[in-house]
Amino acid sequence: MAAATTQLSRLPFADLGFARVDHHRQLRVGFPEVVLCAGKQVAHCTAIFAELAATGGNVLGTRCSEEQALAVQVVLPSARYLPMSRLLIVEQQPVVRTGQGTVLVVCAGTSDLPVAEEAAETARLMGSPVERLTDVGVAGLHRILAPAVQDQLRRAAVIVVCAGMEGALPSVLAGLAGRPIIAVPTSTGYGASFGGVAALLGMLSSCSAGVTVVNIDNGFGAGYAAALINKGAPQ
Amino acid sequence: MAAATTQLSRLPFADLGFARVDHHRQLRVGFPEVVLCAGKQVAHCTAIFAELAATGGNVLGTRCSEEQALAVQVVLPSARYLPMSRLLIVEQQPVVRTGQGTVLVVCAGTSDLPVAEEAAETARLMGSPVERLTDVGVAGLHRILAPAVQDQLRRAAVIVVCAGMEGALPSVLAGLAGRPIIAVPTSTGYGASFGGVAALLGMLSSCSAGVTVVNIDNGFGAGYAAALINKGAPQ
Amino acid sequence: MAAATTQLSRLPFADLGFARVDHHRQLRVGFPEVVLCAGKQVAHCTAIFAELAATGGNVLGTRCSEEQALAVQVVLPSARYLPMSRLLIVEQQPVVRTGQGTVLVVCAGTSDLPVAEEAAETARLMGSPVERLTDVGVAGLHRILAPAVQDQLRRAAVIVVCAGMEGALPSVLAGLAGRPIIAVPTSTGYGASFGGVAALLGMLSSCSAGVTVVNIDNGFGAGYAAALINKGAPQ
Amino acid sequence: MAAATTQLSRLPFADLGFARVDHHRQLRVGFPEVVLCAGKQVAHCTAIFAELAATGGNVLGTRCSEEQALAVQVVLPSARYLPMSRLLIVEQQPVVRTGQGTVLVVCAGTSDLPVAEEAAETARLMGSPVERLTDVGVAGLHRILAPAVQDQLRRAAVIVVCAGMEGALPSVLAGLAGRPIIAVPTSTGYGASFGGVAALLGMLSSCSAGVTVVNIDNGFGAGYAAALINKGAPQ
Amino acid sequence: MAAATTQLSRLPFADLGFARVDHHRQLRVGFPEVVLCAGKQVAHCTAIFAELAATGGNVLGTRCSEEQALAVQVVLPSARYLPMSRLLIVEQQPVVRTGQGTVLVVCAGTSDLPVAEEAAETARLMGSPVERLTDVGVAGLHRILAPAVQDQLRRAAVIVVCAGMEGALPSVLAGLAGRPIIAVPTSTGYGASFGGVAALLGMLSSCSAGVTVVNIDNGFGAGYAAALINKGAPQ
Amino acid sequence: MAAATTQLSRLPFADLGFARVDHHRQLRVGFPEVVLCAGKQVAHCTAIFAELAATGGNVLGTRCSEEQALAVQVVLPSARYLPMSRLLIVEQQPVVRTGQGTVLVVCAGTSDLPVAEEAAETARLMGSPVERLTDVGVAGLHRILAPAVQDQLRRAAVIVVCAGMEGALPSVLAGLAGRPIIAVPTSTGYGASFGGVAALLGMLSSCSAGVTVVNIDNGFGAGYAAALINKGAPQ
Amino acid sequence: MAAATTQLSRLPFADLGFARVDHHRQLRVGFPEVVLCAGKQVAHCTAIFAELAATGGNVLGTRCSEEQALAVQVVLPSARYLPMSRLLIVEQQPVVRTGQGTVLVVCAGTSDLPVAEEAAETARLMGSPVERLTDVGVAGLHRILAPAVQDQLRRAAVIVVCAGMEGALPSVLAGLAGRPIIAVPTSTGYGASFGGVAALLGMLSSCSAGVTVVNIDNGFGAGYAAALINKGAPQ
Amino acid sequence: MAAATTQLSRLPFADLGFARVDHHRQLRVGFPEVVLCAGKQVAHCTAIFAELAATGGNVLGTRCSEEQALAVQVVLPSARYLPMSRLLIVEQQPVVRTGQGTVLVVCAGTSDLPVAEEAAETARLMGSPVERLTDVGVAGLHRILAPAVQDQLRRAAVIVVCAGMEGALPSVLAGLAGRPIIAVPTSTGYGASFGGVAALLGMLSSCSAGVTVVNIDNGFGAGYAAALINKGAPQ
Repeated sequence: MAAATTQLSRLPFADLGFARVDHHRQLRVGFPEVVLCAGKQVAHCTAIFAELAATGGNVLGTRCSEEQALAVQVVLPSARYLPMSRLLIVEQQPVVRTGQGTVLVVCAGTSDLPVAEEAAETARLMGSPVERLTDVGVAGLHRILAPAVQDQLRRAAVIVVCAGMEGALPSVLAGLAGRPIIAVPTSTGYGASFGGVAALLGMLSSCSAGVTVVNIDNGFGAGYAAALINKGAPQ
Repeated sequence: MAAATTQLSRLPFADLGFARVDHHRQLRVGFPEVVLCAGKQVAHCTAIFAELAATGGNVLGTRCSEEQALAVQVVLPSARYLPMSRLLIVEQQPVVRTGQGTVLVVCAGTSDLPVAEEAAETARLMGSPVERLTDVGVAGLHRILAPAVQDQLRRAAVIVVCAGMEGALPSVLAGLAGRPIIAVPTSTGYGASFGGVAALLGMLSSCSAGVTVVNIDNGFGAGYAAALINKGAPQ
Repeated sequence: MAAATTQLSRLPFADLGFARVDHHRQLRVGFPEVVLCAGKQVAHCTAIFAELAATGGNVLGTRCSEEQALAVQVVLPSARYLPMSRLLIVEQQPVVRTGQGTVLVVCAGTSDLPVAEEAAETARLMGSPVERLTDVGVAGLHRILAPAVQDQLRRAAVIVVCAGMEGALPSVLAGLAGRPIIAVPTSTGYGASFGGVAALLGMLSSCSAGVTVVNIDNGFGAGYAAALINKGAPQ
Repeated sequence: MAAATTQLSRLPFADLGFARVDHHRQLRVGFPEVVLCAGKQVAHCTAIFAELAATGGNVLGTRCSEEQALAVQVVLPSARYLPMSRLLIVEQQPVVRTGQGTVLVVCAGTSDLPVAEEAAETARLMGSPVERLTDVGVAGLHRILAPAVQDQLRRAAVIVVCAGMEGALPSVLAGLAGRPIIAVPTSTGYGASFGGVAALLGMLSSCSAGVTVVNIDNGFGAGYAAALINKGAPQ
Repeated sequence: MAAATTQLSRLPFADLGFARVDHHRQLRVGFPEVVLCAGKQVAHCTAIFAELAATGGNVLGTRCSEEQALAVQVVLPSARYLPMSRLLIVEQQPVVRTGQGTVLVVCAGTSDLPVAEEAAETARLMGSPVERLTDVGVAGLHRILAPAVQDQLRRAAVIVVCAGMEGALPSVLAGLAGRPIIAVPTSTGYGASFGGVAALLGMLSSCSAGVTVVNIDNGFGAGYAAALINKGAPQ
Repeated sequence: MAAATTQLSRLPFADLGFARVDHHRQLRVGFPEVVLCAGKQVAHCTAIFAELAATGGNVLGTRCSEEQALAVQVVLPSARYLPMSRLLIVEQQPVVRTGQGTVLVVCAGTSDLPVAEEAAETARLMGSPVERLTDVGVAGLHRILAPAVQDQLRRAAVIVVCAGMEGALPSVLAGLAGRPIIAVPTSTGYGASFGGVAALLGMLSSCSAGVTVVNIDNGFGAGYAAALINKGAPQ
Repeated sequence: MAAATTQLSRLPFADLGFARVDHHRQLRVGFPEVVLCAGKQVAHCTAIFAELAATGGNVLGTRCSEEQALAVQVVLPSARYLPMSRLLIVEQQPVVRTGQGTVLVVCAGTSDLPVAEEAAETARLMGSPVERLTDVGVAGLHRILAPAVQDQLRRAAVIVVCAGMEGALPSVLAGLAGRPIIAVPTSTGYGASFGGVAALLGMLSSCSAGVTVVNIDNGFGAGYAAALINKGAPQ
Repeated sequence: MAAATTQLSRLPFADLGFARVDHHRQLRVGFPEVVLCAGKQVAHCTAIFAELAATGGNVLGTRCSEEQALAVQVVLPSARYLPMSRLLIVEQQPVVRTGQGTVLVVCAGTSDLPVAEEAAETARLMGSPVERLTDVGVAGLHRILAPAVQDQLRRAAVIVVCAGMEGALPSVLAGLAGRPIIAVPTSTGYGASFGGVAALLGMLSSCSAGVTVVNIDNGFGAGYAAALINKGAPQ
């Protein structure tokens, strides 16, 4: 990172005399560089992507607006933008498999898809094979209990579960799966859902053991943690 | 009630020049008189029970302390106290069946039992046959899906579901039962459960239709509403 | 539902490799299919309506934007849009009466009308005769006490009461009606109303028995539960 | 007050080198001195009462514990303690009538009586004739609408309304009375009442004009403001 | 009101089969009719104003948008719109003085002016002479203590104090004025002001007696209550 | 579990006609049975321990009071009670190692020790080797950066971090360790710590990737999840 | 200020009959006049700047919109606008050094830069030499521990630390620096950050002594307090 | 500290295999060692005091219970306990004056005295001359404006202001003093004071510049920061 920082100080926005890049997470060997785009000016975003991509590695931008994505694509035409999950991906190197098993990303409804997709794509770029499972809301248990789904749950190394409203799905799945579950409350819902707070509190209060929780709508954080877990213990 | 009020003004505690009884709910033909004991002095409690019982009907006291119960029992030896649900019952008349079907009271764990029992006993005194079902937490779905339980759920006219922590059980049962569900959040849990708030918000945000909610730990309210619903439409 | 799900996987939006329809409630015999439109892309919405309508039954869309409604109407010209309640209705079959009595929907002011209308129309589509009553705020008690209104309250099988600000109307009506009341807090108000929270807390804390509560602005949930209650106990 | 402060610095507790009396309100001609006892040590309390009483005027202590009251009564045997409202009163001078009309103090149930009594006694000591009205919960409207009650409401100069749970009574009375109403939320209730917060928010959000609000359980503040209002405009 | 209601049912918007006017407050002899415009459709607003104005009395619209005002002015060209306070006033009758003394409306900064002006204009229309005082924040005490200001404070019958941020002004003035104070928290501020909540809590917790509080930004409610208080006790 | 349930229905407390055991978590092969003791009557607790221990496996009781522990020890003298962490352990079988690597439990101060110890002992009983690290608050960075500590952090398979007050430790360690971190907010602190809420929100908002969170003071949940993660992916 | 106020009453906006300028802070000798622009109309803003600048001193406008800045620049072409920090500066006099030492302004990421810049520029105008330090998030400790940074921390008279998300940076720096730290929570973050509340609570709960806190995003307040502290004790 | 830590590991409580001392603050040259006693077992407390005192320096214990104090005094008879502020002080060395000027500690009422005393004594032990000022609530401005008080305010290097309820005092004093103010919200009050939250929010939202805030009841933190500020910039 030292080199990157040095370079950035020569870019035009550096003349604020004050500005520095925040990658906002400590990155690891074999993992892409990650940029949190939200709150950054378009010019900053472009410069950061350009510099990081110049190292030849992969770069992942999260919470990236369409405007930011278009500006980066002018400089880096290979950058791929996923509008639903608002990810911007520069994939210059083949992703190296670091995960022992599979990360399963589950969500209940279409409203939770953007968060689920952010988790899934993050885990994939971190080197974990990813499976997806949707349409499994707690209001329709029989689908959850289908043998194929049960099998998928038991086969997974880690399960990421995205759910809004009452956020009950992680509790139900933890009882069935016997695998570590990362619960992601989503801001889906209205009124007493309080933008995801109901789901967040429900997941933290879960009566099922083996569930840990990340911030509301934090698909990236869940995917990242899942990939880290899936790497297994250091040798 | 008019008569009762008149009488009470002659009791000793009326010399506060200010005090009046609050039965705190509008009572109905065929239903017992109800007294919210919490916050009442022992002498008030005893006087109110004595006066209401003198009419020959049934009386139900809720949130009744052991001390209050003992004092009432001195005056009304037939008063029956249920310590777990803190109900005090004077049952001088056979309960008249008013309900069309059965009220099913469900809870997940032993911590929710006091609330569930309050609901069940209230519904029974209001004239509804009551069934009970427990040990059906969402962390153990297979029990919920047992044919006997499924049958019980479908047979019920109304289902009262008491659950703390994340409060997910009503959502799960609503999807299975197709019957009106009254959800009672309980104050079971700690930390982010916030004394029942997590369960309350979860139940209000339920993704399953057919669920309505009462206040935290309000077993009485749930049992009362269930019995009212179970009476069916006026002829 | 199984068939519908299979079909949808062949629709264009399914190539996300991840997307599934969420009907967000378990539907019942004689009831329409229900689609929560909020948060769905226009294309998703249209495809789901098309598929569900192809089965020949009725379809009810809730929280539907004008843009979504117009797009569905291109494919299904018979779809009727109610802008005030934001409902989109495909009514291909005569509604079968399932309710024993009448569902009465009450609201206090014009600001609560959209929520009240959502409840009323939902209950009607579920097979319940519906009556409406408005202009009955607690600041003007004499209107509530008019004999015609009193009669309407006593005749109803279930009463849905929509109220914002302090949300006192359900407590007042419960004392008068002796019927089950489903209270719907609305987001009407400002400042310490906190978008419906004051009304929600007030309704949950109601001193009148027989009141149960649904989420803020959840007219659909109230109408659905009212219709379910109005069906009476299973035979 | 200047004299009192000077004297107190000679009392034993003043050797803290730091302590001073807080009467916590600016007092007015014809009004008693007021002492907030809560949080004060017994010795402080006694000394303050002794000194203030030495001026020959009336003294009102609020939120006074039984232990504090007993200690003061050793020094000032004429001090009268009201255990329900926790007021301690030294009434050495006849109360001078300052109020133009009558202050009416209303409460719904026996649990609200301590707060109502604090308001009533405060207003009386401030020179306002006081009437009391109880047993008028919103769940039993017909009592509120009795002609005698209606008459009382219209005759009052100011109405203090104490209510817990959903706190709907001020809204209902404001619509009937056409007089200024001071609403006092009480901490009566449980669960979603949040110790009086539900009533507080409801009263602040009242749809009836003419309602102003004081802190939860602040009977003193309501009685004081009512007496001040009842004095009328300065000549 | 009965006549007005009857008429309105013949207006075009009444064909919703459900809509009724909500004047949202019980109005009094000698006071104007009041319409809460926020949340009403432009056509509703216009029709209500037209009908109420047809009775020949005065009409006050609160929280009125410019669009609503312009539409009403097409039908009632004499309607006067005050953009800062968002009031719409039809003043067909000379205002009858009902107040004994003067209502003083105080605010600390220009950001609180819209709320203060709403209070002042409301009180004026209700028949109270109104004085205004501004630029008196607690950060500059010497201005508050100027003899002219002190005189104004002591001369007032009722004082309305509008303040945002920490909302300390009512406490300070209550200590100086010895008159009833109606505190209006405003939504001025950011961060931990939480849209007026900091000021609201501060005013409710005031250490000065004689302060009552209305909802955040509720200038109308404060002006209305002040005018009601200023009328004095019924004869 | 089926057998256990059958047996329990014959125990004395079963005559409630309603009571069932809630083990509150779905248990796994090689893991002990777990009993949440908080909220259970002493007799229930004893009976459940007796029955579960009769199967010959290990049993772990959490949030167990001294009174509950003493009663169980009468029946099961081998039960070991850890007063600091309030765990009650019946260890009849040697713990089978299920974990690939080591679970490192970190805490900053002595106030967090009970929660940390609950996590550590839980993970050990689940079959994970456990290391402990304390006295590493963020106010003293140099200790965290000591080579021995750095080595310990990098060697761990999973890190459990218990912290109260501002809860900053997980963010700091995540940046250093590159391993999955389970953050446990503790209720240590006062005032704006709000019983662990400040730490909880801080951990959820962490700027470091790889951190997931459990409920306040939920050492058991963290230890359980850590052991589950440490088992690695299914083969 | 007296003169300024007199003049302003002759400006066009004064014909509101009600409006007064709020400078919102008591200003000091050698410090510029300060205007909080947020919430002021453009015309008010321009008039206030014109009048204050006419005294020949420096003027600082905070939370100034681009539209306000442009309007002021028409009248005062020398006014300098800093878009990132939204400051508008009229610097007619050389800034007099009042500070004994240096104010160090630290922030962790680019999202916190606007708040940091507001603090830095405010302190500079108040007469304190300012240094800036960025890119020092707690997720990357080694940069914080670089000797140059350590030296900067120890040399500073006061340190202003701006941080969003979990707001852990002030705790970490307080442990290292041994200098007074003013912590500024920023609204950076999402979900459980609650617009800066997580950072605010974390900073208030800090386990490091020497940290005091200002409102969320209140860079001005931090810079002002830092400059005041840096002036040292009065002689 | 290194030595102390080594020694402590030989004390009896170290046999937990896990326990370490948390001094919870980074201590400075010339300042006493500080121990947060709350939450520590009596034996731990005693051992820590003994060890720290053995170095010959001063030791300050905060939030110390009477039981803890008595136990420490057995080992260290010179330890002085201040019951009001719950401080335990071992003062073996004369306090070296480090402060340039005077720290003024202000509080409004006797309820705030314990917090004020904690601040004052802490600042004194850190080497700052301390003055105290009380009985200066905002409800009685004339006392604040007395020339002697004004003089005291202007002479102070730093002012610590402790206030509960609405917490308005710091705003008022900041406008008068022109010195840095550290505001300490206290938990004095009830209802909407929410244990100090109203005062905390008010202080953070202060309209007066120069105010910074510490946690509720954190007299120690305020005194510590005041002494640090009073040391002035490093030479």
